Amino acid sequence: MTTGVKNILFIMCDQLRWDYLSCAGHPKLSTPNIDALAARGVRFNRAYVQSPVCGASRMSFYTGRYVQSHGASWNGFPLKVGELTLGDYLRPLGLKTALVGKTHMEPDAEGMQRLGIDPQSIIGVRVSECGFDPYDRDDGLHAFGPDGRYDPRTPRYNGYLNEKGYGGRNPWHDWANAAQGEGNRLASGWAMRNARKPARVREEDSETPYMTRRAMQFIEEAGAQPWCLHLSFIKPHWPYIAPAPYNAMYGPDEVSPAVRSEDERRDPHPVYREFMRHRVSQSFARDEVRREVIPVYMGLIKQIDDQLGLLFEFMQARALFDNTLIVFASDHGDYLGDHWLGDKDLFHEPSVKIPLIVYDPSAKADATRGTVCDELVESIDLVPTFIEAAGGDAAAQSHRLEGRSLGPLLRREKTGSWRDFVISEYDYSLSGAAAALKVAPRDARLFMIADKRWKYIHAVGFRPMLFDLQTDPDEFHDRGADPDCAAERERLAQALAEWGLRMSQRTTLSEQQILARRGKSQRRGILIGVWAEEDIPDEMWSQYRGDLE
Amino acid sequence: MTTGVKNILFIMCDQLRWDYLSCAGHPKLSTPNIDALAARGVRFNRAYVQSPVCGASRMSFYTGRYVQSHGASWNGFPLKVGELTLGDYLRPLGLKTALVGKTHMEPDAEGMQRLGIDPQSIIGVRVSECGFDPYDRDDGLHAFGPDGRYDPRTPRYNGYLNEKGYGGRNPWHDWANAAQGEGNRLASGWAMRNARKPARVREEDSETPYMTRRAMQFIEEAGAQPWCLHLSFIKPHWPYIAPAPYNAMYGPDEVSPAVRSEDERRDPHPVYREFMRHRVSQSFARDEVRREVIPVYMGLIKQIDDQLGLLFEFMQARALFDNTLIVFASDHGDYLGDHWLGDKDLFHEPSVKIPLIVYDPSAKADATRGTVCDELVESIDLVPTFIEAAGGDAAAQSHRLEGRSLGPLLRREKTGSWRDFVISEYDYSLSGAAAALKVAPRDARLFMIADKRWKYIHAVGFRPMLFDLQTDPDEFHDRGADPDCAAERERLAQALAEWGLRMSQRTTLSEQQILARRGKSQRRGILIGVWAEEDIPDEMWSQYRGDLE
Repeated sequence: MTTGVKNILFIMCDQLRWDYLSCAGHPKLSTPNIDALAARGVRFNRAYVQSPVCGASRMSFYTGRYVQSHGASWNGFPLKVGELTLGDYLRPLGLKTALVGKTHMEPDAEGMQRLGIDPQSIIGVRVSECGFDPYDRDDGLHAFGPDGRYDPRTPRYNGYLNEKGYGGRNPWHDWANAAQGEGNRLASGWAMRNARKPARVREEDSETPYMTRRAMQFIEEAGAQPWCLHLSFIKPHWPYIAPAPYNAMYGPDEVSPAVRSEDERRDPHPVYREFMRHRVSQSFARDEVRREVIPVYMGLIKQIDDQLGLLFEFMQARALFDNTLIVFASDHGDYLGDHWLGDKDLFHEPSVKIPLIVYDPSAKADATRGTVCDELVESIDLVPTFIEAAGGDAAAQSHRLEGRSLGPLLRREKTGSWRDFVISEYDYSLSGAAAALKVAPRDARLFMIADKRWKYIHAVGFRPMLFDLQTDPDEFHDRGADPDCAAERERLAQALAEWGLRMSQRTTLSEQQILARRGKSQRRGILIGVWAEEDIPDEMWSQYRGDLE
Repeated sequence: MTTGVKNILFIMCDQLRWDYLSCAGHPKLSTPNIDALAARGVRFNRAYVQSPVCGASRMSFYTGRYVQSHGASWNGFPLKVGELTLGDYLRPLGLKTALVGKTHMEPDAEGMQRLGIDPQSIIGVRVSECGFDPYDRDDGLHAFGPDGRYDPRTPRYNGYLNEKGYGGRNPWHDWANAAQGEGNRLASGWAMRNARKPARVREEDSETPYMTRRAMQFIEEAGAQPWCLHLSFIKPHWPYIAPAPYNAMYGPDEVSPAVRSEDERRDPHPVYREFMRHRVSQSFARDEVRREVIPVYMGLIKQIDDQLGLLFEFMQARALFDNTLIVFASDHGDYLGDHWLGDKDLFHEPSVKIPLIVYDPSAKADATRGTVCDELVESIDLVPTFIEAAGGDAAAQSHRLEGRSLGPLLRREKTGSWRDFVISEYDYSLSGAAAALKVAPRDARLFMIADKRWKYIHAVGFRPMLFDLQTDPDEFHDRGADPDCAAERERLAQALAEWGLRMSQRTTLSEQQILARRGKSQRRGILIGVWAEEDIPDEMWSQYRGDLE
């Protein structure tokens, strides 16, 4: 029996496509544990991220705000001091809010210095970690190159591997993300042709099981204290490489055909054309690459599913399914060669749509268990969902939070019209495409606005793109210049314009506080436009009169 | 002879209309000292504020950012912690940045508490005071009513008055803003019918001379240290009342006729109609009110001009005209009954346009002395102007600053096209109009976009307004629904939409920093989309290889 929500388990995968789960219809991949969660909760079929790239997407997940509102629009772009994050909302409600895994948060060191915030203080650490208490932060990209390391932080995971006997300065790479190559040489997972070789690490010491165990440790330690744990897996994000047996669990014959059309390469939109020219797109356009990489991508997902099976068993044994809201999501998808693209970044469904499953233990959510929800949902909806689940009032935070609680959908309450469109944004200022197109950093902005049928993409300085998801579900035909679609473009451009003019920075006063202030200044002596004393109630003058000597 | 800019004197009046100066063509009012400044500098003929209300306008003046960007959209709406202000930009350039007078800043107490910033610390005080060191902060509205005081701070000015023998708990009201009425009773300046009575205070102890002397004291104390002083007068803002002789310097016969038309009251835009119904508008629609109030409004301006005469003499005697950039501005105008309105708040020229004079001591500015500049200028241009004058690089701050330095206009440099349009915004969530129209706080938003000919006003939830300043310079005819103007509305709506989608919150990285990052992650080991080791330079693998044992 369920007793309502006490804890929140917020599971995120990295770069997991919405359709690479058996419950979402993948023909070959079997994910029974994730499917079981969907069977106990709601699977959202139209869940979109606010930006199809890790850092920006996550900052929206954690702040509950659009990218244009929080400003951390790409990986490594610091989230400015002052933006509230999940922990700021949940801690006052009594939840220990902690992190195991990745956030891609870049702290605003300059802002902290300007405001005299010690980065080592509790406040400073939370400002630096998206509001989470870092139980085990690990962004999972411990890359080293000729100019040094990508992530200055050495993860606890490297120490763990060393302790377990995996040698070297960077066992993350040398054991967990590399295989044994020809001539007994190290075969790095960064070279995709090595993808199907088994990673050198033992399966139980690879990243996904390590993180899962860390989550269990956190839960054990938390004891009776209510918590929100963000278990944020690094996989199936590149480097695409998996330990045995997951490296070989799927083979090239189980790879789905690429969703792409020669039509797409004829006179494409300039921005799309440049993204097709990126190295990762050129690679994934080759079948050879897809046949090596995708089986391992599938294996990494299978490993996550197996680990979630262990975690769910662990939770079941502790009766945590009775009082824990569980969310399973991803920060964006992966093109995997669809649309002649690799990685993510643009707005086709494989990139911008995510898997989203919400299990709510409350009895009121029984009505929707095992159902699929077709409403337009955004990643910014999670913070209000969590606040509401933890007993807070998310609507009272609507001056900061731009999403809305999914609670009514989980309980099948009447919601009126849920949402007319979703927004996603992309800052391509660092990309090769921006360099090739000579677009200044401030103009390298893309905006997607989509309803259930149409997807419109505004590219600053270029013509728009438009897709009709009904007649062209594969998004092969860009109608951005089609005269027949002028009315749709106009309608969506106007909706985007209204969105752009929204009130997103009036974050220091709530709607209620503003309503409560109406008409109050006169009673504090501000008498604007009064002609004569007798024109307004006598008490207004109480502090303004007297007999003179 | 001039030696370049060492100091900045930033003079602001409150609620001074752009056209109430003799140099701007006022037929009756004589302001020789302000005119003399204009004769030595440049007078901007099309200077607009970012919002026609004190608080929001000033936050834009001090942050260099649009209201939608900083979010402090009305009086008393706290400016969120983290927004950079003038002092943050000028202090690193060596300027002591201080305040005498009004800012209308409301600190973000909740944000400071969340971030552990002590409001009494130096950082806390600056965060609370728009980045200024408060030499003598005084917002000039020391109102008391049945529910208590409007401004919790007791001004130094009240202590000054008490010391000078003016008695009572609130001599600001009882002496500086009240007169002697019938039957020896106090006649409050809050009742406009008392406007032409002399305030009880001696002229030299009234607010404008007091503030001017405080400015001189600051300058004396600063000595050789470079400074930026914001001398921010409270007048000619209401309560409209002046000490002798300024109360009687102008009479009803010198009042200009109201700029209004019966056409305006026929089928007006709903928002405009409700503003016409506000008490202050109803009052100023009456000639009796205009004939009592406007002479005193003029007297208060005259007093400011006389005091600036003394200040300029003081500066001249210290050779400060050789090295001080001087700006004279206002935070917005005053309808004074024009368009059947009182106070400010909407976007007709008497409200949204301001006087702006810039005197630059540099020899390079000799080319423009005494000229009038016709370019579209915004209040957010001042912060970059000051940074540049102080030797800084304003362009390097373009990720935060949304205006541009007026320097090139002062030096008559080729600027290309200067600016295509100006933006102003108004948050009417607290107004009677919002209550009457049942507009929720989040939707109570107005946006003006104007070029040299057209002024377009977007009112969320209503039809737009449109004025043709060329054929209808008095703005009597709202073309917001005129089919003949559809193309102009479309053009301006599109420009406003593009503005709304601007990058305003990516404030933690500059354009230069972003450009410098392009292509750098690969050299730190992030090898996206690489198929085989030999596909990229060998050095990229330097940290990823080795022989296995």
